[in-house]
Amino acid sequence: MADFFDSSLRVRYAETDQMGVAYYGNFFTWFELGRTDFFRQLGFSYRDMEAADGCMIVVVEACCRYRSPARYDDVLSVRTRLQSVKGPIIRFSYEISRPMPDLQPAVLVAEGETTHLVCDRQMKTRALPQKYSSALETLLTR
Amino acid sequence: MADFFDSSLRVRYAETDQMGVAYYGNFFTWFELGRTDFFRQLGFSYRDMEAADGCMIVVVEACCRYRSPARYDDVLSVRTRLQSVKGPIIRFSYEISRPMPDLQPAVLVAEGETTHLVCDRQMKTRALPQKYSSALETLLTR
Amino acid sequence: MADFFDSSLRVRYAETDQMGVAYYGNFFTWFELGRTDFFRQLGFSYRDMEAADGCMIVVVEACCRYRSPARYDDVLSVRTRLQSVKGPIIRFSYEISRPMPDLQPAVLVAEGETTHLVCDRQMKTRALPQKYSSALETLLTR
Amino acid sequence: MADFFDSSLRVRYAETDQMGVAYYGNFFTWFELGRTDFFRQLGFSYRDMEAADGCMIVVVEACCRYRSPARYDDVLSVRTRLQSVKGPIIRFSYEISRPMPDLQPAVLVAEGETTHLVCDRQMKTRALPQKYSSALETLLTR
Repeated sequence: MADFFDSSLRVRYAETDQMGVAYYGNFFTWFELGRTDFFRQLGFSYRDMEAADGCMIVVVEACCRYRSPARYDDVLSVRTRLQSVKGPIIRFSYEISRPMPDLQPAVLVAEGETTHLVCDRQMKTRALPQKYSSALETLLTR
Repeated sequence: MADFFDSSLRVRYAETDQMGVAYYGNFFTWFELGRTDFFRQLGFSYRDMEAADGCMIVVVEACCRYRSPARYDDVLSVRTRLQSVKGPIIRFSYEISRPMPDLQPAVLVAEGETTHLVCDRQMKTRALPQKYSSALETLLTR
Repeated sequence: MADFFDSSLRVRYAETDQMGVAYYGNFFTWFELGRTDFFRQLGFSYRDMEAADGCMIVVVEACCRYRSPARYDDVLSVRTRLQSVKGPIIRFSYEISRPMPDLQPAVLVAEGETTHLVCDRQMKTRALPQKYSSALETLLTR
Repeated sequence: MADFFDSSLRVRYAETDQMGVAYYGNFFTWFELGRTDFFRQLGFSYRDMEAADGCMIVVVEACCRYRSPARYDDVLSVRTRLQSVKGPIIRFSYEISRPMPDLQPAVLVAEGETTHLVCDRQMKTRALPQKYSSALETLLTR
């Protein structure tokens, strides 16, 4: 299994602004979509992590560098990669790109990172349950 | 005390779309801002209704008619009016307008209505607590 | 070709609110996603209608009735149906439902309608270009 | 005139997520609200920069560090500070805090930075018009 996962999305009209491009804050929603898919690929859902295990993955830092505009109806690819797991701190990185036809290379649209803290329902730091941490660590040590 | 309340907001860049006007879905967020202010004007907060009384005001129907575009940086007025309270069903109406300088009449931007069902935390219908229902009914019977 | 089209989407974390369900304003974004797919199914893109033909489909009225909550990570189906085309006025209706496993019937999540006015870039009413209107009318007269 | 400006906002229900706090992507909308107010304080509007001067302030990088949750109905303060202007590159920093009653110190909610490139309508880099650049530079050299 790879340490990254590729999600696909199509830019919505609601996500554009009057500059005619996707509004910069929406890229963080796309990062979240990538994280959700990343966990699903590992065989468990972030929904269950919250509901069944009381385990919240709270964002403590988020950055994005914008390389090329994304426009309404563009199909974009989000590559989500697990960067590190250190105790309750998890880091992901993201590459958003626009695939091109006819063997042309994809256009890089944005890159970013998020850092998360594992918390319980009272927003107190807690360890990641064993089943999740071992699955994540397996990815990192290959 | 009036049966309506006027809120003020400024259109955000994030709320525009590539047509250069505020995206139609955002008007429902402005209606919600009007409702929150309406409750506050009555002397209680919707936050406390949820947190302290376990009382959720769930939306069951929402409509908006768009009369004139709203643009980035426009200052808009939201007039929220209580229409009716029948058991657990509450109706509000809204008028969004753009005040004009020099005694000109305000421009009507949108009108709409929302219907709500009072629910408990398990999303089951419940009666509105006495302190809220009597405050709302006082407005309607004047 | 059918007079409706089914789109699929997954509820994003960003789309939930503190009630633990999808925020009511987001349903209108999902309607728009359905409309975009509806046009694409007919063989032309709404992006091109705007960019190449200067033809905007402006929303003048939007309603939604909420039947059952939508939650984070739910997969939802949006059925977009063309209701009528009368000169520059186009109406669509929508049914959002949650497909269920094991031959159980889908759960109805929301229903709604939008009415649109065809406008040029200066937001003046204009006729829908022939290639679009004839494609839409073919659907309605079958 | 100060090199920072303080804006005020109230957290909307739409801005919360199912964790019961403001969704992390919305902080970038609040940064934008701070920037808009910052320009207004200087005596010109970002709306006019775009409309009258064809001058877009495109985001090329954005970061946010989340220190304490923001909740529905919280009143927050956004302090926007001009960091630097180097040719077509403008940097801002932001501090979002929650004022507290009774002379208690404000709670720091988030900090962040954005970097912008001045562009024309075709998204090509251009110089900032003289009237804007001289106003910004005056702030920085005091």
